Amino acid sequence: MNIVVQKYGGTSVGSPEKIKNVARKVIQKKQEGYQVVVIVSAMGDSTDRLMKLAHEISEYPNSRELDVLLTTGEQVSIALLAMAIWDLGEPAISFTGSQLNIQTTAIHQKARILDMNVDKIHQELSKNKIVVVAGFQGVGKDQEFTTLGRGGSDTSAVALAAKLRASCEIYTDVDGIYTMDPRKLKKAKKIDQITSEEMMEMASLGAGVLHHRSVELAHKYRVPLYVASAFDPVTGTRIISGGSGELEESVVTGMTSSHSDIQVTLMYLPASMKSLRRIFDEMAQKEINVDMISQMKVDKNRMHVSFTVPKEDAHYAKVMMESWKMEDDLIQWEINEDIVKMSIVGLGMRSHSGVAGKVFDLLAQADIEIKMITTSEINLSWVIDAKEEEKAIELIGEGFELTNCHA
Amino acid sequence: MNIVVQKYGGTSVGSPEKIKNVARKVIQKKQEGYQVVVIVSAMGDSTDRLMKLAHEISEYPNSRELDVLLTTGEQVSIALLAMAIWDLGEPAISFTGSQLNIQTTAIHQKARILDMNVDKIHQELSKNKIVVVAGFQGVGKDQEFTTLGRGGSDTSAVALAAKLRASCEIYTDVDGIYTMDPRKLKKAKKIDQITSEEMMEMASLGAGVLHHRSVELAHKYRVPLYVASAFDPVTGTRIISGGSGELEESVVTGMTSSHSDIQVTLMYLPASMKSLRRIFDEMAQKEINVDMISQMKVDKNRMHVSFTVPKEDAHYAKVMMESWKMEDDLIQWEINEDIVKMSIVGLGMRSHSGVAGKVFDLLAQADIEIKMITTSEINLSWVIDAKEEEKAIELIGEGFELTNCHA
Repeated sequence: MNIVVQKYGGTSVGSPEKIKNVARKVIQKKQEGYQVVVIVSAMGDSTDRLMKLAHEISEYPNSRELDVLLTTGEQVSIALLAMAIWDLGEPAISFTGSQLNIQTTAIHQKARILDMNVDKIHQELSKNKIVVVAGFQGVGKDQEFTTLGRGGSDTSAVALAAKLRASCEIYTDVDGIYTMDPRKLKKAKKIDQITSEEMMEMASLGAGVLHHRSVELAHKYRVPLYVASAFDPVTGTRIISGGSGELEESVVTGMTSSHSDIQVTLMYLPASMKSLRRIFDEMAQKEINVDMISQMKVDKNRMHVSFTVPKEDAHYAKVMMESWKMEDDLIQWEINEDIVKMSIVGLGMRSHSGVAGKVFDLLAQADIEIKMITTSEINLSWVIDAKEEEKAIELIGEGFELTNCHA
Repeated sequence: MNIVVQKYGGTSVGSPEKIKNVARKVIQKKQEGYQVVVIVSAMGDSTDRLMKLAHEISEYPNSRELDVLLTTGEQVSIALLAMAIWDLGEPAISFTGSQLNIQTTAIHQKARILDMNVDKIHQELSKNKIVVVAGFQGVGKDQEFTTLGRGGSDTSAVALAAKLRASCEIYTDVDGIYTMDPRKLKKAKKIDQITSEEMMEMASLGAGVLHHRSVELAHKYRVPLYVASAFDPVTGTRIISGGSGELEESVVTGMTSSHSDIQVTLMYLPASMKSLRRIFDEMAQKEINVDMISQMKVDKNRMHVSFTVPKEDAHYAKVMMESWKMEDDLIQWEINEDIVKMSIVGLGMRSHSGVAGKVFDLLAQADIEIKMITTSEINLSWVIDAKEEEKAIELIGEGFELTNCHA
């Protein structure tokens, strides 16, 4: 019999009524002939409430004990969901990360799954039970409780599906993956099917529905993913590993825009590989993640270099640039915080040339200046002034047919 | 170094402020030169809140899953208390029942402790840490979560103290054991020292401070107990195992009164051992616990029998009596729900005669009729009309010097 792993996030189990709704959906899947394993997050804002309690006790709560505290959130959800399933007449059994021995690294609040024992799950499935598993948690050595950090429950679900050779359905508060965040582009289209490669790019570029760790894991272990609404029965988005997605239909599958970076520019640097290398070595030592880079020669001896770094590292970047300027009077620097990084993603970009040219053309229509641009095999990213974001999204959305014109 | 097990109940850890207060008390004990193990209950009303959630999901929540749910309550407390101790600069580590492998029977909500592994505790104590342990919980086989039922955290504390050969301090919302519940007898005296035998009688007769399971365990394993207030620094009550208590000072150590029983009377029963035996066999089959019994012959052939049963079994008792009456027209029955069972307890009663006579004399002063009376080695119990309770408590309290005349 086929096994399906379903995952329901915190909003989907935010109240007793919602938990009963999840129980009905889970039972329906079983009645369709599947063996069902369900991963749940903590109810609604319960993780926030536990964090608040911890901070009322201590400004810097002990990180081991914080995980002892936080793991109770999912334990409450799994118990309640299993009760709700029993109450509807189907047998169910819940397991914590510790009971399943979901082994992780020992880094509290940021643990990574190493392995897990699925024998117990197979045993219970063969007894006709629906198995309910706590997401977001595992155990380090000596049964120490650990939590997985952001996107943790999605990662738990995909890891479990990989281990069970099952498909994985992620139910959330949106009804699928869109060509662009619908809050930013009202006419964005829902994507019926996307490849995991494209989805990885989208997720790492800031598309919020799935955490990139879970998409990477699904890609690596070829776990078929499906993202849909926990409340609305409309069809969601299928994420397929390998294959061609909708290659024949469109060149560009989706678009993202992100405000998480700033642009740093160093002017009149000595024009040598040595000075370039030094910049990025020093950034790496401070663990500052440099993303886009552009470089322009001014004359035989000097050049300008521009790059983006995460907003939270702005202070370090300034200190570093000030020290270079002190060594060399000619050097000047500036930082631009009002930028937005936009990206388009699509497997079709591998075989279609002219995508960058089309982006230039479209933005030129509104006199939008591109400050930096980079390209990889399946994505094209550029930086523009933040104030031009809305217009740019509209132009690119329409130009690459990412909108639903008849909506 | 001496080990002390301290236990703090739900009220004592009911808020972040109260948890910090407990952290200070625990650290103080450590600074006095002890190795400290702390058992905590769930915060304030959190067990009630979890029960309410469960009942919003299901009228009859699955009992295995109910324990998965309920055990989160203490897990929250241990994490927060360990954080609070760290925050005050002392190292601490928390353990759930599952992490310590506190093995219990498999009966959910009513499990009994079988054994536990204290190696982990010794290891952490030897690293200079304060060890914080979740009360009320353990694991059945296959790491199934279990809870211990009423008085569970006290039992956890005493069992742990027995295993660690430690003494045990129970901190609660009253400041010790009184000769009589001070809500019922304002001038009740605090008892400085009481034997575990006397305390067992008091607890099983309804003195609410300690659950009788924990007192029995302390008696069995000769664990010295101390009961005191978690908030008020006044001296509490010492419960010593073996020894003589305050034998030389007073005959009667304490008094209890309880409204949990009703009196059942069967009249004009055939006067034979056979009919008596039948009553109590049938009661036993229904698991109805018959407590006090009195019997009086009416004539050569007929007798009256009176006994007490728990209030919650009143319905069954009525059904049973009705069926006897149907078999034998002569039989009549009545039930009296407005009774109170009062008891006095004291090791001194072993060697002092005349205690029953003194009780008769004292109650006669106010024309209080004794409906039933029973006596064991160290306790004397009697039943009177509920409306005479207050007066009787006062007379017996004064008569046996259970009051604090100079208070």
